[in-house]
Amino acid sequence: MIEFKIDPVSEKLDQELWNKINGKTKPLGSLGMLEEIAFNIGKIQNSLTPKIDNPNVVVFAGDHGIADDGVSFYPKSVSYQMLYNYMQGGAAINVFSNQHGIDFKVVDAGIDHDFDPSLSIINKKIAHGTKNYRFGPAMTKEQCLEAIQRGTEVVSDIHKEGCNFITFGEKGIGNTSSGALILSLLADIPLEECVGRGTGLDKDGVKSKFDLLNEALSIYDGSNNPIDVLSQFGGFEVVMIAGAMLKAAELKMTLFIDGFIITSALLAASKINPKVLDYCIFAHKSNEQAHIKMLNYLKAKPILDIGMRLGEATGAMVCYPLVKSAVQFINEMASFQEAGVSESEETKTIS
Amino acid sequence: MIEFKIDPVSEKLDQELWNKINGKTKPLGSLGMLEEIAFNIGKIQNSLTPKIDNPNVVVFAGDHGIADDGVSFYPKSVSYQMLYNYMQGGAAINVFSNQHGIDFKVVDAGIDHDFDPSLSIINKKIAHGTKNYRFGPAMTKEQCLEAIQRGTEVVSDIHKEGCNFITFGEKGIGNTSSGALILSLLADIPLEECVGRGTGLDKDGVKSKFDLLNEALSIYDGSNNPIDVLSQFGGFEVVMIAGAMLKAAELKMTLFIDGFIITSALLAASKINPKVLDYCIFAHKSNEQAHIKMLNYLKAKPILDIGMRLGEATGAMVCYPLVKSAVQFINEMASFQEAGVSESEETKTIS
Repeated sequence: MIEFKIDPVSEKLDQELWNKINGKTKPLGSLGMLEEIAFNIGKIQNSLTPKIDNPNVVVFAGDHGIADDGVSFYPKSVSYQMLYNYMQGGAAINVFSNQHGIDFKVVDAGIDHDFDPSLSIINKKIAHGTKNYRFGPAMTKEQCLEAIQRGTEVVSDIHKEGCNFITFGEKGIGNTSSGALILSLLADIPLEECVGRGTGLDKDGVKSKFDLLNEALSIYDGSNNPIDVLSQFGGFEVVMIAGAMLKAAELKMTLFIDGFIITSALLAASKINPKVLDYCIFAHKSNEQAHIKMLNYLKAKPILDIGMRLGEATGAMVCYPLVKSAVQFINEMASFQEAGVSESEETKTIS
Repeated sequence: MIEFKIDPVSEKLDQELWNKINGKTKPLGSLGMLEEIAFNIGKIQNSLTPKIDNPNVVVFAGDHGIADDGVSFYPKSVSYQMLYNYMQGGAAINVFSNQHGIDFKVVDAGIDHDFDPSLSIINKKIAHGTKNYRFGPAMTKEQCLEAIQRGTEVVSDIHKEGCNFITFGEKGIGNTSSGALILSLLADIPLEECVGRGTGLDKDGVKSKFDLLNEALSIYDGSNNPIDVLSQFGGFEVVMIAGAMLKAAELKMTLFIDGFIITSALLAASKINPKVLDYCIFAHKSNEQAHIKMLNYLKAKPILDIGMRLGEATGAMVCYPLVKSAVQFINEMASFQEAGVSESEETKTIS
């Protein structure tokens, strides 16, 4: 098994962080979840003045053999077509990352298409899509470990550019199927509860998708070893993201977690090294029905719940400014003392 | 009764707006509430290319006679002290409006303190705080109508600067008491269900607050005419905001609605002219317990729910970028056709 050395986040500054937050000119606790986010990023960075430096959003893309069986509403070709859309700046993630001035990168983890090398797509392609796991493993164990390794390379390079805050996104027609199977096996939840509408299946579509995935599950030995599960059912993008996450935590970066697929990669990563979870801020609850089960399993509390289910890290990207707000208030707001504002008795007692 | 001529929003572009939203390179409906926001601002502006021009956040401040009775956790003096904090840039609303590059203005609607005219506080002071409504009306009917009038002046001036998107905030120690009484009388909800913790009262504090407000209610004739209610229980800031909202709707601006106090002003405004509601986007559900009742009464669906209860329009301000994202995706995302991406059968049928 591949190993990651992730330090636990320090508790040394906990009291000082809360004193700083509670001393700001506001009623105690009145910034709600923003206070928890400021506290958590302070812990991750072991700093009373946490900062977001050179934030990145990285979309990993891969194709899925199972997509040929019609588990998705869209044809497989949409995966590569959307990468061209990213290059032309026309996708939702382009709009939202531009809006917030965030560096956006695209990684080809295993798309079934050859891109012109002149395009600014980071080429980490393992193969032209996974095999159809209805008939056997999606990838070999070697491919799985190689995908994890390449994920770490992507993050190391970004870290070298001075980034300490990273958001992962995905593109891969068929990948909510991977997510459902990973959730079922790694969180021990019946498959039926894990399968959802993906890009927009109706009730009959979800039933067919479940039947196909159930068939795929029936030829698997049931191991809940994360590498086994990822090799059997992973998309290359999902596996690569899991590796990227583990590396990011090793490098003490803050991981800003998007929706269903990304959380399934995190679930797998957490089974390799659970300390990865200490470095995560959870962005949103996706409208993909099983995402909430996944979040509950990880004891994760997302910021936003507005019915998004687009993928590409768009859920995280639209609520990125809230995380920025958390970091800014802890650094920039005046304390009662600095502002000469009367404190309540409660604040005086606590801070 | 003061009158406002608010046009109903047009339904002319409804179908075209949805066609445009549905044609974007994303699964149908996958941007969730952002799609509804884009649609609603498109309707308000009667445009397929809605824009946010020169957005403003305006905090109206006023003092409350009832604050002398200890309905709040903080002394009355905190209201004016916080205005100095705004002027020095140290408050939460300074941090968040700066973060988003939004023009921040402060209006003295009736603070019990004289500010140096050299400070950039817009002086619309009606009086040095309201009277204690435990013993009679908080203000005269003339003062109430004058406050509404001055609210319209503030908005007219801002509109002349090219602003089409306005957020209202408030400062006034004791004003959740006004909000509770307005909610109880105008939405016909028992007072007990309307009283909450405000800046941080404990259970006993909430009970004392209820007892005081119940006593205040017992000397009132029970009229649910909005001007009567506002005169009896309003803060000058609450009344001025109600007037400002009605004027903003008249001018076809988008009103971005913050928490409990601001929604209580809107509730009152909607009883003067219900069409004001067509121009509103609801930002967040405050942690003040009765806010959800107020939102439900207005059939309003807020974007964010992260336990905030700071006031100053901070809840709205931190989720402003989500509204901006809505406006940006409808303008900037590529359509399937533009991007050469295969559509699903469903999209083809609908768009």
